[in-house]
Amino acid sequence: MQSALLLSELSTPCLLLDQQKLDHNIKRMRDHLARLGVRFRPHLKTCKSIDVARRVLTGHDGPAMVSTLKEAEYFAGHGVTSLIYGVGITPQKLDRVGAIRERFSADVSIVLDSVEQADAVAAWGLSHGTRLLVYLEVDSDGHRAGVAPQDSTRLRAIADRLNGSGSRLRGVISHAGGSYSLTGADALRTAAVNERIACVTAAAILREAGHACPEVSIGSTPTALFATDLTGVTEARAGVYMFGDLVQAGIGTCSIAEIAISVLTTVIGHQENKGWTLVDAGWMALSRDRGREKQSADQGYGMVLEETGTPYPDLIVLAVNQEHGIVGMRSGSSAQAPILPIGTRLRILPNHACATAAQHDRYHVLNTDHQIIAQWPRIQGW
Amino acid sequence: MQSALLLSELSTPCLLLDQQKLDHNIKRMRDHLARLGVRFRPHLKTCKSIDVARRVLTGHDGPAMVSTLKEAEYFAGHGVTSLIYGVGITPQKLDRVGAIRERFSADVSIVLDSVEQADAVAAWGLSHGTRLLVYLEVDSDGHRAGVAPQDSTRLRAIADRLNGSGSRLRGVISHAGGSYSLTGADALRTAAVNERIACVTAAAILREAGHACPEVSIGSTPTALFATDLTGVTEARAGVYMFGDLVQAGIGTCSIAEIAISVLTTVIGHQENKGWTLVDAGWMALSRDRGREKQSADQGYGMVLEETGTPYPDLIVLAVNQEHGIVGMRSGSSAQAPILPIGTRLRILPNHACATAAQHDRYHVLNTDHQIIAQWPRIQGW
Repeated sequence: MQSALLLSELSTPCLLLDQQKLDHNIKRMRDHLARLGVRFRPHLKTCKSIDVARRVLTGHDGPAMVSTLKEAEYFAGHGVTSLIYGVGITPQKLDRVGAIRERFSADVSIVLDSVEQADAVAAWGLSHGTRLLVYLEVDSDGHRAGVAPQDSTRLRAIADRLNGSGSRLRGVISHAGGSYSLTGADALRTAAVNERIACVTAAAILREAGHACPEVSIGSTPTALFATDLTGVTEARAGVYMFGDLVQAGIGTCSIAEIAISVLTTVIGHQENKGWTLVDAGWMALSRDRGREKQSADQGYGMVLEETGTPYPDLIVLAVNQEHGIVGMRSGSSAQAPILPIGTRLRILPNHACATAAQHDRYHVLNTDHQIIAQWPRIQGW
Repeated sequence: MQSALLLSELSTPCLLLDQQKLDHNIKRMRDHLARLGVRFRPHLKTCKSIDVARRVLTGHDGPAMVSTLKEAEYFAGHGVTSLIYGVGITPQKLDRVGAIRERFSADVSIVLDSVEQADAVAAWGLSHGTRLLVYLEVDSDGHRAGVAPQDSTRLRAIADRLNGSGSRLRGVISHAGGSYSLTGADALRTAAVNERIACVTAAAILREAGHACPEVSIGSTPTALFATDLTGVTEARAGVYMFGDLVQAGIGTCSIAEIAISVLTTVIGHQENKGWTLVDAGWMALSRDRGREKQSADQGYGMVLEETGTPYPDLIVLAVNQEHGIVGMRSGSSAQAPILPIGTRLRILPNHACATAAQHDRYHVLNTDHQIIAQWPRIQGW
């Protein structure tokens, strides 16, 4: 980019990233985990951008977490070679994992939670004469995948299959995704304690059965930020913390002012008798994520700010179609609705940063003078 | 592509398009509108692919509707030059509209519903010495944008501003998006009648005031398919009809068996005590669209089929995270849950075809022998 663009020169809708807020969020997590004495492994599924990744990673080669093998290929191609692919492995994906490991000399670990998967990984490792590194997923809160930490039979059976083959159990891993439905520091601290205990318990069972289990990896933005003691844990992971969003603000992991990404949009019309302002950001630009619907302050499809980032009290996106958003006052508001002529630029804070960013192919990076100082591409697909 | 791939050779998640169903849906709409004697203008926002567009368009240059100026550039670049950009115009976008018209010798019309926009368009047209062609948006059902058809003052004021300048009112246009919340033939026929009357009324008001208003364009998949009389209408538009989806099946515009797109996914795990099967299609592959939530049969985030397309009774996607889907039986089902080992391939029918397709960069085109006979790229962004 030759010189800084002004916000007013951007075509809408588009994705903005406030560099100062990004850097603040990164430092906050890094400092917190350094105090707790654990390694930090950022989850790059939130940013899908090497330019963002370079700011969040603690080292040139990682460590990092990814949610797709396309992310693994992309980041490994940029030198980020210490990776965990965090979605339970299927036999069909092992060839691609092997290819990434070989092509980029990458240390790509995989995740599983069943004897069936362990057998498939063991068989693949033996037939390819290679050693796959595996994390055993532990279910700390019942929200998704993983072995219950007290299910010692299944934990041991999986580790036996792996360590009896050419592959190797590197550790246990959990994602406390249940914390996304909590609110407030007390509940989050409890979730963090529960996640730590679940993982440390599973690791102890495995070690008692004679398996080396060097790594104990926990992670979610809420539990990483609200952990006060990570004894027995070797690393923590988090992704959405780097941007923040309205769901995270509702949970209590960030403030509205700390949210680093937003969608720039333009007013395209009005239905005055209904109090509606129509904008050119619909679900294609915002995503259909209604993350805060169950939280106390429903933000519709996003909170509406002035172009320069100051919130309008109670102005939210009430509804979305593909390329239309309907902006209006939150139900029950007594605030004065702003006057927003056609052509007015607005910013919309997202419910869920990962989902909104996924709708865009680049970040327009903002400095504190509201100038666009860079465009950082992001990847899509699998 | 050298030779046909098998379904089993595809990496998951990915988007499938059944060519026979696509062709059936296209023919159905085209035959219906031909019987009613109106021109058909497909909306290409659903497919965003020239390969699909070539099958749905009635002529090489269109006519077609688009939802973004990037679509206009892409399709015009492929020779589809008779276009309406359907999102209310803002002054900032007029230069880009002008550039597309000039670069591709394209007949790109714009849409507006206010005097402010008409003034901006008139001023732009005068200062550029060019004639912009404009559709005046009419609100037939209160769901989004447009002038109320009985608001003759506003209709006339907009037409006066345009026709007094270098630009020109080409016609009136409506989108009966309210029909998406209806169910059954009677309600849809009524919506179609209402949409026709709204547009024909607005056109009559404009003509009575001395304005030529050659075009009367109505459109939405439900109202286009359920119209039985389009007297006074010159063209109908529709987009999602080409693929169909669970929302459209709930409305009654297609059957489940007619849905042409689906997401191929792989089983990655289980939580047996909860009856959950985990798959590698989350909201990134399916979208967060919960379109059928308010319809009588809630399909969660999608209906689950065998790899070859046969539905499993009552099996749906209960919940989604970024790259995980949780599959299980619909609440209250008495059907037997299928046994789905790790590695099993499944297909998921989408709630909303436009939203699900938008998450993918290509279609894997299926023939009736379950072979992939082509990959058709699609565009993203603005």
